[in-house]
Amino acid sequence: MAEPGRNRADALSVAQWKEKIERALACPQAVGPIRNIKDEDPRPFDAIFIGGGAAGRFGSAYLRAMGGRQLVIDCWPFLGGACPHSACVPHHVFSDCAAELMLARSFSGELWFPDLREKLTSIKEVVDLFRKGRTGPHAVMNYQSREQLDIEFLLNAPARILDRHTVEAGGEIFRARHLVLTLGAEAAPLEAPGSELVGVHNYATLVETLDREPGATVVVIGGGKTAVEYGCFFNATGRRVIMLVRNRPLDMIPDRETRAYALERMLQQGIEIIEGADVVEIVGDSARRVARVVAATPDGPIEIETDFVFHALGERPRSRMAVEALGVEIDAKGAVIVDEALQTSAPGVFAAGDLIGSPMEMFKARKSGAYAARAVMGEKVSYRPRDWPDFLHTHYEVSWLGLGEEDAREKFKNVVVMKLPPDNPDGLNIGLPASDRTMLYAMARPHMSGFQKLILDGDSRRVLGAHHVGYGAKDGFQYLNALVRGGLTIDQLAEMDELFLNPTYFIQLARLRAGQPNLTNLA
Amino acid sequence: MAEPGRNRADALSVAQWKEKIERALACPQAVGPIRNIKDEDPRPFDAIFIGGGAAGRFGSAYLRAMGGRQLVIDCWPFLGGACPHSACVPHHVFSDCAAELMLARSFSGELWFPDLREKLTSIKEVVDLFRKGRTGPHAVMNYQSREQLDIEFLLNAPARILDRHTVEAGGEIFRARHLVLTLGAEAAPLEAPGSELVGVHNYATLVETLDREPGATVVVIGGGKTAVEYGCFFNATGRRVIMLVRNRPLDMIPDRETRAYALERMLQQGIEIIEGADVVEIVGDSARRVARVVAATPDGPIEIETDFVFHALGERPRSRMAVEALGVEIDAKGAVIVDEALQTSAPGVFAAGDLIGSPMEMFKARKSGAYAARAVMGEKVSYRPRDWPDFLHTHYEVSWLGLGEEDAREKFKNVVVMKLPPDNPDGLNIGLPASDRTMLYAMARPHMSGFQKLILDGDSRRVLGAHHVGYGAKDGFQYLNALVRGGLTIDQLAEMDELFLNPTYFIQLARLRAGQPNLTNLA
Repeated sequence: MAEPGRNRADALSVAQWKEKIERALACPQAVGPIRNIKDEDPRPFDAIFIGGGAAGRFGSAYLRAMGGRQLVIDCWPFLGGACPHSACVPHHVFSDCAAELMLARSFSGELWFPDLREKLTSIKEVVDLFRKGRTGPHAVMNYQSREQLDIEFLLNAPARILDRHTVEAGGEIFRARHLVLTLGAEAAPLEAPGSELVGVHNYATLVETLDREPGATVVVIGGGKTAVEYGCFFNATGRRVIMLVRNRPLDMIPDRETRAYALERMLQQGIEIIEGADVVEIVGDSARRVARVVAATPDGPIEIETDFVFHALGERPRSRMAVEALGVEIDAKGAVIVDEALQTSAPGVFAAGDLIGSPMEMFKARKSGAYAARAVMGEKVSYRPRDWPDFLHTHYEVSWLGLGEEDAREKFKNVVVMKLPPDNPDGLNIGLPASDRTMLYAMARPHMSGFQKLILDGDSRRVLGAHHVGYGAKDGFQYLNALVRGGLTIDQLAEMDELFLNPTYFIQLARLRAGQPNLTNLA
Repeated sequence: MAEPGRNRADALSVAQWKEKIERALACPQAVGPIRNIKDEDPRPFDAIFIGGGAAGRFGSAYLRAMGGRQLVIDCWPFLGGACPHSACVPHHVFSDCAAELMLARSFSGELWFPDLREKLTSIKEVVDLFRKGRTGPHAVMNYQSREQLDIEFLLNAPARILDRHTVEAGGEIFRARHLVLTLGAEAAPLEAPGSELVGVHNYATLVETLDREPGATVVVIGGGKTAVEYGCFFNATGRRVIMLVRNRPLDMIPDRETRAYALERMLQQGIEIIEGADVVEIVGDSARRVARVVAATPDGPIEIETDFVFHALGERPRSRMAVEALGVEIDAKGAVIVDEALQTSAPGVFAAGDLIGSPMEMFKARKSGAYAARAVMGEKVSYRPRDWPDFLHTHYEVSWLGLGEEDAREKFKNVVVMKLPPDNPDGLNIGLPASDRTMLYAMARPHMSGFQKLILDGDSRRVLGAHHVGYGAKDGFQYLNALVRGGLTIDQLAEMDELFLNPTYFIQLARLRAGQPNLTNLA
């Protein structure tokens, strides 16, 4: 069937959108509000989404698909929010570079790989490449939102909430039956003297303001996903990377052995991690640039000379405007409190996305936006994220779902484990697993070719958890997770058709054991 | 639970197996039969698997897991068969190199990438790297088979079938209740004068006998998966590649647009394809090396000067020994005919794997081996491959499942299509899709960043087909296929939790439309 609203006469092409977005980013005032509102439509808005990130855009699309009328407002000249501008997309660019650079360094001077030993590669060139390219995805999202999804929007225009039904933006007043707050989150600040110095960055300022090539030593503050992901990229460029971590890095990986594999590969690449570290001060030079970092550690105070500090200390919901304008209740972390119908404490006002707190993941932003749209349209909905798969990047892709082995053993009596490499006298230094993007490692650097583990309940024969370090598995974890939620057993897994050499060997490992009436480990 | 047979006193480590396999490959006689047979076990063998490739090894493991006793015999000194020695594993090594080299050439001289313009990189070094590394996976499979799976085997010993219960190998006679023929297949020969010249290779001889660096022009004969996969690798090394294809290359990709995207990227990388071409003769020089290829084409005869010819014309089941010894019936292509219980025409003799014909895919080899084991153990089984997902490599990974758009439209009245990039005035030259391994393309070479398509029945809302060109999706297609078999709808897809930036955007595309009572395209 044809798409509604497709190919109208005044359509902008993706290239035209890109040009317009670039002009607006360079000087918002020169372009002014970017308005796609059907003034001829006599219907009132069912909802105004305040914030055009994942939650606002997917909520808008869903509401529109249901036949309702919405408006989405954003201060940026594009829909999609921080993700394509400073978060998920640049993160994936950097992680891709980290993977490529680790490969190039591992085979430095062999095959076609350049000799990168002792050489720094540019961080700034990658940042510049991203900054130049990012308006491409922005433009696609505007094109898709307008021409394919028929979304009404007002962009390049900050919104001001006047009351529970009324918003001002771009010099106009808009009213709706409901507001949906989708204002997102932003990097939590580094609370230390000197955090304002030039050369101190978070993920957002890195791509906006990096003005020169960082030197040979980088200090990363934090141990969560973002800190690890950026730290691995900086390391892969050949720099000394010192991570100052308050607790433990990679702590979110639920399986101990999987975490250890990922962590050991980071250390092997030369990343230095100091646990229990607190930043005392960042000291600048006379030009107000970073000169060194002073930290307290369990072994006493340390000073690190550096001109480049990256901190990633979590995300803070952007709830202030909503609190001030509507008095919505927030929790201790600043997240807007909602019930399972995405209702805030302000009657008729909904909220979705990162603004409502963790998990601040894309699936939750989009799904909660869509659920809020359904609630707006009168559906009785209940949304609470549960049992989601997860991932992060080191130089590798690390994916997981369900329980780690330790938790599984606490909850189940008859836990069966299948893993690769198995426990064996040569440890990790063996040539399997191997799959796309790890083949050269498997053949010539086997300890680098990945780790994977499947955890089962031997009584019910059900999959309890799956864990993977390598590449090319995170997409599969989405679908595998849906199957596991549905009660996937080893016998069903053994019946599937693998696409060999598959990154996750779970199907074939399952098939090697499925014939057993009483399952035993393959580990 | 502990593994049966694990950690016996006489266990060989993976490293020890590697060394032993290397000695046996260098000189089989010096090592002699590699025997892991429990002479103390008083039970007769339930089955002897003749051939230790995927079918024989997985069949053995399954039978053992069920509590039966088996023996598997192979002429190679390792279990696993051709896959790790000359087929799937080297293929993945070469395809990984093709992907890496395309990236390096696309960004030649930018970022950290070496300037590869006008430069050839070595084919032989990659072959040598593989040949040196492949005994690693071999060793793991022997280790796993013996120490973890408790399989009895006789390796480095060709088997001779004496009758329906009896086999001679390594100077011993073995008897079993049943034989399971798992002899595999081998590359079909090139039927043209000159096919025996030095420099004419198939996938098996390439990794065994390549003795010098190929020159600047490569002729590839064939248009199937293997021809395309190796052709793309040779092309990525900087060589001129001319593919002589009898019919159409990439003909197995069911969706026309997906095939076109994959094919156009190959052409853009400079691969030359001559359709309707028949090789007339390969002409050698005085040293009996290839000098040129003569072919008949729709535009008349051509001659191509080259010192390197690669042909991939399909696989031929290795059925001769079984026909001669047991009189088993074969089909016109030489495949051993079996019923759905994997029974051959010889009573009590089973067959599995590539020997029984297409699809000659890993999942079928392994599953049919396991089903044969179940039949041997008295279970009433029925196995016939159906609705499997599939993939190939160009410089990309191309994955598919279910119906292409054209077939879907023939079978369903209300077909709904979701794809990325959508039809738009800028065509493919837009910055989405983007995911792991395509990020640099998405930012700076957007026409190279992939293509994907989901096909739905608008009436039942079910997924009919999925198609992907990019990276990191083939693992997901395994699990997605299981969901599609189970009747996956757009609404269920929209409820899943994506791991963004996921290679397959199907979950989020579904969520953008799932609110519609009457689905429309997002294309």
